[in-house]
Amino acid sequence: MAVNLPPLPELHPVAGIRLGTTRAAIRKQDRRDLVVIECAPGTLAAAVFTKNRFCAAPVTLARAHLAQALPRALIINTGFANAGTGEEGLDDARRSCAELAVALNCTAHEVLPFSTGVIGERLPVERVIAGLPGCLDALGERGWEEAAHGIMTTDTLPKGSSRRVLISGKTVTVTGIAKGSGMICPNMATLLAFVATDAAVPRTILQQTLGAAADESFNRISVDGDTSTNDACVLLATGKAGVEINAVQGAAYNAFYGAVRGVLDELAQAIVRDAEGATKFITIDVVHGASQADCLEVAHTIAHSPLVKTAFFASDPNWGRILAAVGRARIAQLHVDRVAIHLDEVCIVRNGARAPEYREAQGQAVMAKAEIRLRVDLGNGTAVARLWTCDLSHEYVRINAEYRS
Amino acid sequence: MAVNLPPLPELHPVAGIRLGTTRAAIRKQDRRDLVVIECAPGTLAAAVFTKNRFCAAPVTLARAHLAQALPRALIINTGFANAGTGEEGLDDARRSCAELAVALNCTAHEVLPFSTGVIGERLPVERVIAGLPGCLDALGERGWEEAAHGIMTTDTLPKGSSRRVLISGKTVTVTGIAKGSGMICPNMATLLAFVATDAAVPRTILQQTLGAAADESFNRISVDGDTSTNDACVLLATGKAGVEINAVQGAAYNAFYGAVRGVLDELAQAIVRDAEGATKFITIDVVHGASQADCLEVAHTIAHSPLVKTAFFASDPNWGRILAAVGRARIAQLHVDRVAIHLDEVCIVRNGARAPEYREAQGQAVMAKAEIRLRVDLGNGTAVARLWTCDLSHEYVRINAEYRS
Repeated sequence: MAVNLPPLPELHPVAGIRLGTTRAAIRKQDRRDLVVIECAPGTLAAAVFTKNRFCAAPVTLARAHLAQALPRALIINTGFANAGTGEEGLDDARRSCAELAVALNCTAHEVLPFSTGVIGERLPVERVIAGLPGCLDALGERGWEEAAHGIMTTDTLPKGSSRRVLISGKTVTVTGIAKGSGMICPNMATLLAFVATDAAVPRTILQQTLGAAADESFNRISVDGDTSTNDACVLLATGKAGVEINAVQGAAYNAFYGAVRGVLDELAQAIVRDAEGATKFITIDVVHGASQADCLEVAHTIAHSPLVKTAFFASDPNWGRILAAVGRARIAQLHVDRVAIHLDEVCIVRNGARAPEYREAQGQAVMAKAEIRLRVDLGNGTAVARLWTCDLSHEYVRINAEYRS
Repeated sequence: MAVNLPPLPELHPVAGIRLGTTRAAIRKQDRRDLVVIECAPGTLAAAVFTKNRFCAAPVTLARAHLAQALPRALIINTGFANAGTGEEGLDDARRSCAELAVALNCTAHEVLPFSTGVIGERLPVERVIAGLPGCLDALGERGWEEAAHGIMTTDTLPKGSSRRVLISGKTVTVTGIAKGSGMICPNMATLLAFVATDAAVPRTILQQTLGAAADESFNRISVDGDTSTNDACVLLATGKAGVEINAVQGAAYNAFYGAVRGVLDELAQAIVRDAEGATKFITIDVVHGASQADCLEVAHTIAHSPLVKTAFFASDPNWGRILAAVGRARIAQLHVDRVAIHLDEVCIVRNGARAPEYREAQGQAVMAKAEIRLRVDLGNGTAVARLWTCDLSHEYVRINAEYRS
């Protein structure tokens, strides 16, 4: 079902990072569902997390552990989100960290926990613990592909991206994996994504880099407008490449940022391409807005409209639904007589009404494609924003009506 | 498909109001699609309209005409919304009014136009005009039921409500009809609804009554979160009952308001019961919020979540999705450890986590019903709000993917 999502590219190892994946039967038999990512001593980490107030126990704990110590390992399970589980959920997450810490001879604070899956049911922590030896046995620098499979839930394909750039004559690698699929409307963070580099990057620069890159990638996708309780994106820097990034400007930083942003963009787009039931990949550009916030609000209102999404699914250029979504967006000022809408290169609306030269067959031709660009011009300023989204299909309803059965 | 929507009740005539409906072949052959509502001279009117900035041409015109004159007639067509049609759309709406005015020997300002249907295509005004004699021939005080059919689009059943109350020893009638189905998330107004009474009510009191009653009824329903471009609700007062409402308090006003509110409540609920693809009728009560705005924001976030809606469709007590929706609602403050959630009488969440005594079978039993009450307690104040919504089914996607074909 995924829309033009290519097979997993080669995921270059990142010196200092080893990954191990196993089948721990956490919720279903015989699927990869538990991953350990081990970091060399001295690895620095930055992270962004969900803004959902009902954040999961592992999110709370990972945030706390990051503030206390450098990470030596990440532990990631699928099957259960360990969200809405109260104090017991925190205890379960703590126990997972403690058990892995014993095996790795570090402290529990040096382990970051992540979970994804059904909300509100307890994590079967015994199964997690029983699965740890399998992960540790499998640990290796080439474990990225297995791990990309190990963090999947309703994803139909694994998602990974990898870049190599030359900085000061040395090769720096940035490699990442992500999972997505449903409950996707990240807010300052996302789903689960784990990205590592062998550059040496001080923590403040690492956090700034991740924040900026996530804001332009993961925070620009929406499948269903539902912000998850478990979104988390971690960027690890092992420093093993012998390249140091000391400032947030200059050629070295630009090359590094470009690689991180490239990986995050690719992962974010992969999540939309493989969104639950998606048959179309839609890029929404809102331009000439009074502010970026206005542009994003309009883009989100369009992306979340079930009527717009079902029209895309039906390949129906029913632009009136797009117009109606623009008209109800919560922005301070809208000059309806300046609004223009393009589908790819076809101008459909100009000056707030149907463009006189527009013919239905033109819109139909664009809508029939699997990749569509929708451009809304607000004619009210200089700000722009881009959002990636998908359509709403029978398959989305089927998947989400059957998810727990 | 409609959820427990009873057949049309008896719609009592309102002295001074005559309705005529015809088949004008405006968009489809052989369906009732054009309605004229004639008002006796001296009839006062109040109205609330959509807050969508891309409001339709007839909305713009009806608003302007209402400000200039008392209404002598309403003209309502289905098939085309006459929205997103620019100046040409305004001209089309003006012509419809002018033609009806000639036939009724009044001015065009005394005619209020209403349209519903596809956005962005021009109203075939010649067909509207050609249909007028059919409507005028059919005019009669008992025309409410035919008119209820005549304003339907994807509605599967007609919607009407009628009340009689004794005020000062005389019978006052309030009768109304409405259409809904999709693109339903009214904002200060709604869909199309036409309500009339034979009480004599000064315009300010009439507008205040309609505003208050619509705010507690039509503005409390959501099918898909999409606010239409054409929402309009009109309340007409002919004064023929010989009863005058002079103040917004006292026994007479309370009886009158109760009747209006009763009719609007019934119409609003009928729209949700007959929403596109609906299989469940869900009442969301958000209680103990810091403000009514907070309660409404939480209720809307739940009602608009595709994941919550598909879980209801699947009869799956997947309360984690409800929790996640509460957690991402845009309110200033949420004490997650105080949140409680009930499905009917079953407590599912207490103190922000699964209630210890809750068993899945209990939630399952509630979810299997066609009518469900969801109660979210924010534990943060004294405000409350109620919203009516429905589930998201395969049928919704089918209807909206096929609407124009």
